[in-house]
Amino acid sequence: MPNPVLVEVTRGNLVESRHEGAVAVVDADGATVLALGDVAAPIFPRSAIKGIQALVLVESGGADRYGFGEEELALACASHSGEPAHVAGVERMLRTAGLESSALACGTHWPLHQPSALALARAGGAASALHNNCSGKHAGFLCAACAMRTAPGGYEEPGHPVQREVKAVLEDLGCAAIPDERVGIDGCSAPNWAMPLTGLARAFARFATGRGLAEQRAAAAQRLRAACAAKPWFVAGTGRFCTDIMGHFGARAFVKTGAEGVFCGALPELGYGIAIKCDDGQGRAAEAITAALIARLLPLDGGDKEFLARFVRPVVRNWKGTAIGRIRPAAEALAMS
Amino acid sequence: MPNPVLVEVTRGNLVESRHEGAVAVVDADGATVLALGDVAAPIFPRSAIKGIQALVLVESGGADRYGFGEEELALACASHSGEPAHVAGVERMLRTAGLESSALACGTHWPLHQPSALALARAGGAASALHNNCSGKHAGFLCAACAMRTAPGGYEEPGHPVQREVKAVLEDLGCAAIPDERVGIDGCSAPNWAMPLTGLARAFARFATGRGLAEQRAAAAQRLRAACAAKPWFVAGTGRFCTDIMGHFGARAFVKTGAEGVFCGALPELGYGIAIKCDDGQGRAAEAITAALIARLLPLDGGDKEFLARFVRPVVRNWKGTAIGRIRPAAEALAMS
Repeated sequence: MPNPVLVEVTRGNLVESRHEGAVAVVDADGATVLALGDVAAPIFPRSAIKGIQALVLVESGGADRYGFGEEELALACASHSGEPAHVAGVERMLRTAGLESSALACGTHWPLHQPSALALARAGGAASALHNNCSGKHAGFLCAACAMRTAPGGYEEPGHPVQREVKAVLEDLGCAAIPDERVGIDGCSAPNWAMPLTGLARAFARFATGRGLAEQRAAAAQRLRAACAAKPWFVAGTGRFCTDIMGHFGARAFVKTGAEGVFCGALPELGYGIAIKCDDGQGRAAEAITAALIARLLPLDGGDKEFLARFVRPVVRNWKGTAIGRIRPAAEALAMS
Repeated sequence: MPNPVLVEVTRGNLVESRHEGAVAVVDADGATVLALGDVAAPIFPRSAIKGIQALVLVESGGADRYGFGEEELALACASHSGEPAHVAGVERMLRTAGLESSALACGTHWPLHQPSALALARAGGAASALHNNCSGKHAGFLCAACAMRTAPGGYEEPGHPVQREVKAVLEDLGCAAIPDERVGIDGCSAPNWAMPLTGLARAFARFATGRGLAEQRAAAAQRLRAACAAKPWFVAGTGRFCTDIMGHFGARAFVKTGAEGVFCGALPELGYGIAIKCDDGQGRAAEAITAALIARLLPLDGGDKEFLARFVRPVVRNWKGTAIGRIRPAAEALAMS
């Protein structure tokens, strides 16, 4: 059975496109708060779990050893836009650990932030692995390897001690073993393990509350969330959804995008974790649903509601800036927000 | 009832994303050759009908008056990548008609072709309306207006004589009236009218064969198809699907992408028109289905089959070039190809 339509995209008087998907909101004990669609099928969380992957950097002692502050920790959790201060931050992380950018296995692409890409070209520069949106996560893996006193080479292989530890953390937070064969290779060459949305949502409920976690792990999660709340620009960048949402709500809402229509997040004051997968992989739908869930679940004042409205039902504009349609939640459970 | 899954996207051992949609293959008499999903619902064809929109340029006498050759006619049918020769061609079209780029109402964006965008920035240039992927179509509208001796200003308004004529041509080719309220504003500010996939496919069957069309209209369609077959690079650009497919098959396959997961095309030797809409708007799925339809319907030799395979089931690679998954047709009617 197909998943429900979560989001519609209109043009003129018609619905032009629609996005099906599944949504799970779960508390730290695994109780379901809201479930739409198939929340049991394993999905690749992609970059939406970078916050959890970064636990290994903190727990290994790497963050302390290299004196990382909020910016570096936020970068370890980031899918950044490759703006100059993102790149400088990742370079600083590597340099502190005595590493060069050639150690990064994430591959090269131009900055996602178009003005930064164009400025780089104008200045005669070239794209490097530092501009890759995952470079902060990879710098975190490398620094964790150094802190664990294991060779950093091959750190992106599923069998490397850093990745084995990442998998163990995911299993602990999600309260379920993950079969080894559920591995996929991410866009940045890191391993990514498929998990059900319920497991992901529970993992983020535990990440947000520390409930049921070892003390050191709970403290590491708290430190990473605080870093992202304090420096949300380093988690994404200018004009990006994750930055704007965490910039407004601070520690009240942790949200993180992943490729192929995934979003994970948490609402710590409620103890809820959130996991979303749009079946077709479109991020615009996952963003609208994330905003709709915040609007529905979190106690909001008038300013919060006004702020959220443009993310729940964004206006679509064309190249001349004319409003030509809207993105809007379609599932009844979300549209009521 | 949802449309069938047309395309799956795999990563590792799992299907990571899937795309539903509808497909119509129809002949010039309106007989259905193949139909999947809801082919009766009106959809916005977006840029997939640029070949039909360009009929007005030829029929108005504009193409002859300004001495347009194959490159200019292909540009009028194009969603080009903004590479230097695309831009120069559109500039030439406008200059010939005594117009400047300020007459273009399509809005401005940087070239879709990233190396061209970066080279433009390196050279100290800036994006202009000429770089907009629709600038050739808009130049065609403007030249048609001049040839029709009507004021070109406001040529992008649904009530302008050029757009009224475009709508009349669409109704003629699709053999059905289009209610005025089915209009949407396209990304380039031109009006776009929603039509059912069966009507679009029939329109392209008639565009490809001339069957049932007035002699002048059939000749204009033949001239535009020949231009696109001869100069497919001007219809899209370097590394683009439409360019590659028409570059290989020449006049045997006319294919044109539209935003939000639309593809239209024709296989003239079979007399078939094709129209595809992926419900979620993802172009990767519409491309794979277009290639799968060609593979299924067109008589092919070994070289054709080898050429098509990488478009029917493209390998997905990450930033390091590692193969991490595949895009593949899922509907039985297409997977058999």
